[in-house]
Amino acid sequence: MLELRSYVGARWVAGTGAPQTLLNPTTEEPLAHASSEGIDLKAALEHARATGGPALRAMSFAERGAALKAIADAMQSEREALLELSIANGGNTRSDAKFDVDGAIATLLAYSEIASTLGNSRFLVDGEGIQLGRSARFHGQHIAVPRHGVAVHINAFNFPAWGFAEKAAVALLAGMPVLSKPATSSAMVACRIVELVAGGKLLPEGALSLLVGSARELVSHLGPQDVLAFTGSGETGAQLRASAAVINLSVRINIEADSLNAAVLGPDVEPRSDMYELFLKDVVRDMTQKAGQKCTAIRRVLVPQQYHSSVREDLVELLGAIRVGDPKNEDVRMGPLASRAQLEDVRRGVGRLEGKHVFGSPAPLGAKGFFISPILVEDPASAVHEHEVFGPVAALLRYKDDPAEIVARGAGGLVSSVYSDDQEFIDRMVTGLAPFHGRLYLGHPKIELSPGPGTVLPQLVHGGPGRAGGGEELGGPRGLAFYMQRVALEGSRPVIQKLLGK
Amino acid sequence: MLELRSYVGARWVAGTGAPQTLLNPTTEEPLAHASSEGIDLKAALEHARATGGPALRAMSFAERGAALKAIADAMQSEREALLELSIANGGNTRSDAKFDVDGAIATLLAYSEIASTLGNSRFLVDGEGIQLGRSARFHGQHIAVPRHGVAVHINAFNFPAWGFAEKAAVALLAGMPVLSKPATSSAMVACRIVELVAGGKLLPEGALSLLVGSARELVSHLGPQDVLAFTGSGETGAQLRASAAVINLSVRINIEADSLNAAVLGPDVEPRSDMYELFLKDVVRDMTQKAGQKCTAIRRVLVPQQYHSSVREDLVELLGAIRVGDPKNEDVRMGPLASRAQLEDVRRGVGRLEGKHVFGSPAPLGAKGFFISPILVEDPASAVHEHEVFGPVAALLRYKDDPAEIVARGAGGLVSSVYSDDQEFIDRMVTGLAPFHGRLYLGHPKIELSPGPGTVLPQLVHGGPGRAGGGEELGGPRGLAFYMQRVALEGSRPVIQKLLGK
Repeated sequence: MLELRSYVGARWVAGTGAPQTLLNPTTEEPLAHASSEGIDLKAALEHARATGGPALRAMSFAERGAALKAIADAMQSEREALLELSIANGGNTRSDAKFDVDGAIATLLAYSEIASTLGNSRFLVDGEGIQLGRSARFHGQHIAVPRHGVAVHINAFNFPAWGFAEKAAVALLAGMPVLSKPATSSAMVACRIVELVAGGKLLPEGALSLLVGSARELVSHLGPQDVLAFTGSGETGAQLRASAAVINLSVRINIEADSLNAAVLGPDVEPRSDMYELFLKDVVRDMTQKAGQKCTAIRRVLVPQQYHSSVREDLVELLGAIRVGDPKNEDVRMGPLASRAQLEDVRRGVGRLEGKHVFGSPAPLGAKGFFISPILVEDPASAVHEHEVFGPVAALLRYKDDPAEIVARGAGGLVSSVYSDDQEFIDRMVTGLAPFHGRLYLGHPKIELSPGPGTVLPQLVHGGPGRAGGGEELGGPRGLAFYMQRVALEGSRPVIQKLLGK
Repeated sequence: MLELRSYVGARWVAGTGAPQTLLNPTTEEPLAHASSEGIDLKAALEHARATGGPALRAMSFAERGAALKAIADAMQSEREALLELSIANGGNTRSDAKFDVDGAIATLLAYSEIASTLGNSRFLVDGEGIQLGRSARFHGQHIAVPRHGVAVHINAFNFPAWGFAEKAAVALLAGMPVLSKPATSSAMVACRIVELVAGGKLLPEGALSLLVGSARELVSHLGPQDVLAFTGSGETGAQLRASAAVINLSVRINIEADSLNAAVLGPDVEPRSDMYELFLKDVVRDMTQKAGQKCTAIRRVLVPQQYHSSVREDLVELLGAIRVGDPKNEDVRMGPLASRAQLEDVRRGVGRLEGKHVFGSPAPLGAKGFFISPILVEDPASAVHEHEVFGPVAALLRYKDDPAEIVARGAGGLVSSVYSDDQEFIDRMVTGLAPFHGRLYLGHPKIELSPGPGTVLPQLVHGGPGRAGGGEELGGPRGLAFYMQRVALEGSRPVIQKLLGK
């Protein structure tokens, strides 16, 4: 069987000890083994810091951007192979696989384009120069420089390609070497991408490392110039935030965790209108795309009292048309969950939501594979505002007065969406929802090819306060700040201007 | 004796139980009692969130800025009284007291001026609008809105006025209510300022609360929309960062902690030159101003091998001219440390540095009061890069090749300074030092009235990576981000433009 290896210290290294087995979640057939036992994690980080860091810092933004483009191009040439791996190892339909792989390529290209606007510099100029005294000679200027550590990325199982790329593109462009740790169960796609980068020498030595298998004591080796970015459960996020390196050495940490994303239908939106149909389409897409295993998927569907039965009937009908099965089949719209652990977690979570199942049930589907049907829950318990069920599950909630107050019970989310043509209502929702979110999606039927709220775009920030982890990624050039140190230069204006190359 | 009270729920409340006694550190005479026992901290926070938050959010930036100006004006009218309190309760010379009080007033005025540039809006527009699709209709725009929680500020003992103002000005301008907790030992100045604000009704009810005495379990009542900003020791900072609310609820935290700020003399700077004299003046000012109790004070003095004895002799001479004593006397240049605990801590710290005392000694001075002499240490142990001695103590280090490498051993600092006329050397130092600092001060004798590296300016960021806590404050409008939620609006361009009032 295939043995996945880690890429550390510019070498491919196999772990020792009892490996974890990666399965095809459709057939439960074993695909590969992986273990990180015996790998010198401290040396891996030190190599990245000592070799990859200086090499990246010697490159201009434009040169780093060219490297990102080369990675995107390499992925594009191997796209079919990556899609096949994604279907086999991730239980993805071809459409789901494209969402991951093409999203990764698009994100790399977006940051490559941002690089071209930053040009031949090696640091960022932050804002205008500031006159600090009565005379213009006493001058201040903020700049941002790459941190001298390594960026450790601990990624979620659901997007092995995109999750790798959305973090790595930003760190590499900022000038920090990356050690990427994919979730083991779906690591095959990420491994293949790193093989492309390493094999093609698309980055300087030490700029990209890969750790397959358990992270073991990795985080304990981090130091004050390192950063740690994590996407996954709130529970693991809290453990990482409580680690000694973060607490005592101020290792910078970014967490993207649980989110009870809401979709709010405005009271002005009549059934059968274009806005109404868009709302239904977005809800059903988010429930079933990637079998609901998206951190941005709609979990709470808020509808005005008077349209509640109409929405329920329409959603039940649309969900009934979703064919669940082997994602290799072209007419299948939803594949299995990614692993047995996820299946069990989702079934437990549906139990916590209580309420009435107006569509679907948490019973396993079929004799093989980690299948479950989409589930629409009505009149759920208050757990609907507290517990993220990471699968094809949403709850239908009716509101009378203020839906924003209901959404806010989620205590911080990545994205919520509003579907309304009433500017006063939209205004009120944005005011009420903005403090609790990293992104607000305002649905509009006239936007062609609208990706819906579940798609993260590299130009916009991704993250959210509170339960969502309190982090922020992407947002075009905004994402670079996490990997850089902002420093104020204070002194004589001519000296500072010479430093800036003016 | 005076009993200091807390201002919570729009009422002045005295604590119960055994109080802490505030002393005059010059005479050890008791000045006041303070206790927070029995105060309902949860209710205090809830009042700020429920009353102060909505009131501030209903105000425009311009209106909030006008309130900051009113606070500055009230402090200006009570300046003499504040200076007297600062001299008595803080052991400050009149010059030290002005540094604190005038710094506070200047910071409030600076943010009041920033407010006037932000105008009548209630949220910030962050960057330009972004075209997201092939058509211009699909549009993105980042904005920043005030968080819906309370900003808890835990301040250090050394700057009861400035420390209060530099945090409160930014939070209030951002639209967040503040609960300020001064260090108990020197709380009298902060209490008086809050009396001015409350008595003059300079802010809406609930916008500013004050907690005097122990913070007790305050932090455990914080929630996902709250923020916590702390200035003080790295040890306490780590405890706050490890608190359950921060770990589990993503309470946003900013820490400004220990820092082994360095001053680097360039190899081009000959003794007796203007640059050399500026360097000496800055070192001596930082060692003795506020008896060295400044987070930004120079702790490590790096000089090229060839000028080492010259610098030592000159510093010894200048330090010999510093008169230590009762800060009420006009010819006294340095008062006592702020408390017995600080005196003991400094004496222990000097022991940890080892090396040779080329000036001063850690023996207590005089029969009464917490006095110590300035101390210049030569050939210290490696603790000089690890342990901040928070008093009038600096270490003289000679370098041969790369001073930046030596400075970096401090593992992250607030500010370091470079004194050189050699642009190539300055360039090399900025490149080497920037990743490890929040601010770099480039000394230049032609800057009139240069405040030196130890003065924090509201226009420039204050904070630093690693040991310095990994935080960032001030920096003009940059400081607002900590108190606001950035959110991406995604949708139809005309809808978003209407939201922005365009």
